Amino acid sequence: MPEKFHKVGLIGRHGDATPQETLVKLSRFLLDLGHDVLLEEETALRLTELTLNRATLDEIGSSCDLAIVVGGDGTLLHSARSLADYDIPLLGVNLGRLGFLTDISPNEMRRAIKQILTGHYEEEQRFLLTAEVDGTFYTALNDVVIHKWNSARMIEFEVYIDGSFVDAQRSDGVIISTPTGSTAYALSGGGPLLHPSLNAIVLVPICPHTLSNRPVVVSGDSTIEVRVSPNIDTDHFRVTSDGQTCLPLKSREIIIRKHPHLVRLLHPHDHDHFNILRAKLGWGDHPT
Amino acid sequence: MPEKFHKVGLIGRHGDATPQETLVKLSRFLLDLGHDVLLEEETALRLTELTLNRATLDEIGSSCDLAIVVGGDGTLLHSARSLADYDIPLLGVNLGRLGFLTDISPNEMRRAIKQILTGHYEEEQRFLLTAEVDGTFYTALNDVVIHKWNSARMIEFEVYIDGSFVDAQRSDGVIISTPTGSTAYALSGGGPLLHPSLNAIVLVPICPHTLSNRPVVVSGDSTIEVRVSPNIDTDHFRVTSDGQTCLPLKSREIIIRKHPHLVRLLHPHDHDHFNILRAKLGWGDHPT
Amino acid sequence: MPEKFHKVGLIGRHGDATPQETLVKLSRFLLDLGHDVLLEEETALRLTELTLNRATLDEIGSSCDLAIVVGGDGTLLHSARSLADYDIPLLGVNLGRLGFLTDISPNEMRRAIKQILTGHYEEEQRFLLTAEVDGTFYTALNDVVIHKWNSARMIEFEVYIDGSFVDAQRSDGVIISTPTGSTAYALSGGGPLLHPSLNAIVLVPICPHTLSNRPVVVSGDSTIEVRVSPNIDTDHFRVTSDGQTCLPLKSREIIIRKHPHLVRLLHPHDHDHFNILRAKLGWGDHPT
Amino acid sequence: MPEKFHKVGLIGRHGDATPQETLVKLSRFLLDLGHDVLLEEETALRLTELTLNRATLDEIGSSCDLAIVVGGDGTLLHSARSLADYDIPLLGVNLGRLGFLTDISPNEMRRAIKQILTGHYEEEQRFLLTAEVDGTFYTALNDVVIHKWNSARMIEFEVYIDGSFVDAQRSDGVIISTPTGSTAYALSGGGPLLHPSLNAIVLVPICPHTLSNRPVVVSGDSTIEVRVSPNIDTDHFRVTSDGQTCLPLKSREIIIRKHPHLVRLLHPHDHDHFNILRAKLGWGDHPT
Repeated sequence: MPEKFHKVGLIGRHGDATPQETLVKLSRFLLDLGHDVLLEEETALRLTELTLNRATLDEIGSSCDLAIVVGGDGTLLHSARSLADYDIPLLGVNLGRLGFLTDISPNEMRRAIKQILTGHYEEEQRFLLTAEVDGTFYTALNDVVIHKWNSARMIEFEVYIDGSFVDAQRSDGVIISTPTGSTAYALSGGGPLLHPSLNAIVLVPICPHTLSNRPVVVSGDSTIEVRVSPNIDTDHFRVTSDGQTCLPLKSREIIIRKHPHLVRLLHPHDHDHFNILRAKLGWGDHPT
Repeated sequence: MPEKFHKVGLIGRHGDATPQETLVKLSRFLLDLGHDVLLEEETALRLTELTLNRATLDEIGSSCDLAIVVGGDGTLLHSARSLADYDIPLLGVNLGRLGFLTDISPNEMRRAIKQILTGHYEEEQRFLLTAEVDGTFYTALNDVVIHKWNSARMIEFEVYIDGSFVDAQRSDGVIISTPTGSTAYALSGGGPLLHPSLNAIVLVPICPHTLSNRPVVVSGDSTIEVRVSPNIDTDHFRVTSDGQTCLPLKSREIIIRKHPHLVRLLHPHDHDHFNILRAKLGWGDHPT
Repeated sequence: MPEKFHKVGLIGRHGDATPQETLVKLSRFLLDLGHDVLLEEETALRLTELTLNRATLDEIGSSCDLAIVVGGDGTLLHSARSLADYDIPLLGVNLGRLGFLTDISPNEMRRAIKQILTGHYEEEQRFLLTAEVDGTFYTALNDVVIHKWNSARMIEFEVYIDGSFVDAQRSDGVIISTPTGSTAYALSGGGPLLHPSLNAIVLVPICPHTLSNRPVVVSGDSTIEVRVSPNIDTDHFRVTSDGQTCLPLKSREIIIRKHPHLVRLLHPHDHDHFNILRAKLGWGDHPT
Repeated sequence: MPEKFHKVGLIGRHGDATPQETLVKLSRFLLDLGHDVLLEEETALRLTELTLNRATLDEIGSSCDLAIVVGGDGTLLHSARSLADYDIPLLGVNLGRLGFLTDISPNEMRRAIKQILTGHYEEEQRFLLTAEVDGTFYTALNDVVIHKWNSARMIEFEVYIDGSFVDAQRSDGVIISTPTGSTAYALSGGGPLLHPSLNAIVLVPICPHTLSNRPVVVSGDSTIEVRVSPNIDTDHFRVTSDGQTCLPLKSREIIIRKHPHLVRLLHPHDHDHFNILRAKLGWGDHPT
């Protein structure tokens, strides 16, 4: 029966306290249903009581039909970036605290996953960004940030969109965010919320010197170029993708565009993005 | 020779001091080039020295190949709404102060318009919104605003997008804006700038009681429904489209969606939206 | 024993569902302790089971030693304004939902009030504003707002502080707020939080056309003058003090300054303004 | 005749292109009027054509009656901090671009300074902050900033005011600013403008995770304590005062309070803080 997603990769939170119990329950549940289960190898290191087959993220990407990620949004971001080149769908189980991406809670896990495994789900596609710096490519599901580093001074840079000069800016940096990232750092920086289905990228200046430097939303197909001013030492800015800081830069030019692959997120049928926004942001519910 | 835009409608600023000189120069220039020129009838009332054929906006829309609007962005907004049901392209000449929509200045008018008339131009499409209230439809190129009226109290309303409940909100109102309107009232209310080419609508809460009620950007194809709470008297809120206030409402339900027709804006080849943003918002230019 | 606050005025929520139970309990509690109790006459209308002596707010102000206000912040604002000319201290009991001003909850009411009645309390002084319009004076504990009215258009006005020209502004209006009001409408408008002890007034522009028109904090002893532009019809703006809209204006000049009397608020000893801010605004508590 | 300010210290911009011409003109002008002039020694290094007596900033502070600072606001900030322990008044001449602190322009310099030297001036007092870190004290006229360092992650810290817990915060940092600094980095971070005469300090969170973490204005006499969380490595945050970054920290506790001395700024009689705000921020002038 479990034809569609026969082989399932299980991925736990990395570098942190292990969500052992949830993973153990989940793997038994999947095995009982007759699925093949591969456990991500770093997750396995901290899960000695499970004797599942182990696999790298790449092996999961290339051989599994579905990846279930157990952890917080950070874990899902990491997995999604690592699996970006594969066509594998992802499903996020949180560890008790609702995430924007990990929307299945442990206590409804069995019901929700069973539903999904039997083909009753919604598939949502989220795009990623690629930042090209010094000939290397970095992937981000949330955001690419160009920001000051090792310095209290603002940085100066020019922004170009599809080759058109936007402006020369002095600020602490700029957040270039997908709709997925619009609920994360970009929101703290004063950016708007972008609906996940939107083919758009938002540029949010961080503490800009010019008060009219407001967030700008452009097409998701735009090529965004940030050219840091020659006045700024290469030690004094960095590029960060999804919170992972890149190596020191040699050049001053960063090119950001949509990643060629999409992330496939699976949700139970009752999934509703605005429900999550209301819960996470404390928005008003229907008056009683 | 002037085949493409043989018949030109000329529209001046309404209800205000007449930009006579620019209109007289412009009409002579067009006649000299062999064009047929129709003068919008209200504009004509204040332009007695011109003996052009007069026409209503509807006649211009149905019979002309091009409408040239002389005035500010407000004049162009008005003309665009009135001509929304026709397929006629528009071209905006400002009266000395650069507008977001009226980007041709009087002193470069002849050169720029000649270029456009001979087929050297860029055409940009801007979408409009339609607000359905009590069975009547209102058109907006900038924004539809639902706001408190005749009262110092906040209003309460629920927002739905494509039938999904977004939230129940207490605020002074909400601005529902096109990319075109994102440089107008929505910007004052704290909204982001949307690139004109974006198929997106932004909802900007006005002075919301809940601080996390931030601007939300959704697809331009969304159906947005605002349901004002039964606690709010129908005298205490109104709907405004492009700054034109609607009649008192009977119902409490406003439905906003994209208008079926697009506005066609013509620009000279060197047109650049970011140039205008830099000039109007005082953004930083290339350092010298 | 209850010497300090022998005679107590009891004031309930006005114009709304009666908090009968809390008022009944409270009056019995006070009578048992040997206090004289006066019930505010409008509160009494809806409290038929209590046979207390009735009094107007003015009579309470002139004859009582303490006023206990049972309701929300709105009720306390109203009472504080009405009692502004008397030296009577106030104490706010909320009806289950913590207020910024009504910080005693019904279930801790007896303990907290007993403590206060026996002299164990903190007294906090809050200043009020007076708005002079057309020769009439309006009192506000939160804020005076000059705002557009019956119109979708921005208003234009000039602001002067102690006779110095600040700027000419186009916006939906301006909120002139005390520290007390800085958690209310001014916060929704983008203003900062002012500590209640601060002798300062904040001016918060509402949706200003110029993006650099940011909130300005000036001395609480400043005289603030707003001169609405002659371009704006007197029907198209109004003055509101604590949400109470003034009559239509004849002149275009509004003068705001500190009210000569202070409001005296009593709190239990464990009162902490930041506790209330954390609870009301969802700020982070000590990590566990 | 020039009794009041007989001995004048001249201070130029440090570490940058020398404003030679203005300094030469100014020193001749002062010598012609019979003043004693001391040239700050670092300024002198780049001004070989002037054969004035040289002095350290400390010598100027202890022996001069007036210090004239020629440069931008940065130069004045530096001089004011260095001279903080002396009672010497300061006067700022800008180099062509109006500053908030350097409000005398070169072309009106002689007239304005003559006026001031002959006793026609306004004296304004600005307070400074002292940050105590690891037993060392840092002085700031604008702001003390506690911020993330060498990391893309938010920092976590607790804020206390006069011993009261304010909140536990996750953000890029917090700007603690004087009224003087409220036009600088604090403004870019979303803070309000504080009138220079106000005895108040504003705390502005930088990109806070919790959207209701808004700027808070407290008394200038407050003791502010920031305790960085033990979760944050001491390499991953720093303290900056007026843009000068402190050495790596050993402890996680920073105490900020008012500096015991005031800065005395002299201005010509027509000085007007709001004039400067209008000019620098592009606020609306009187309509013509």
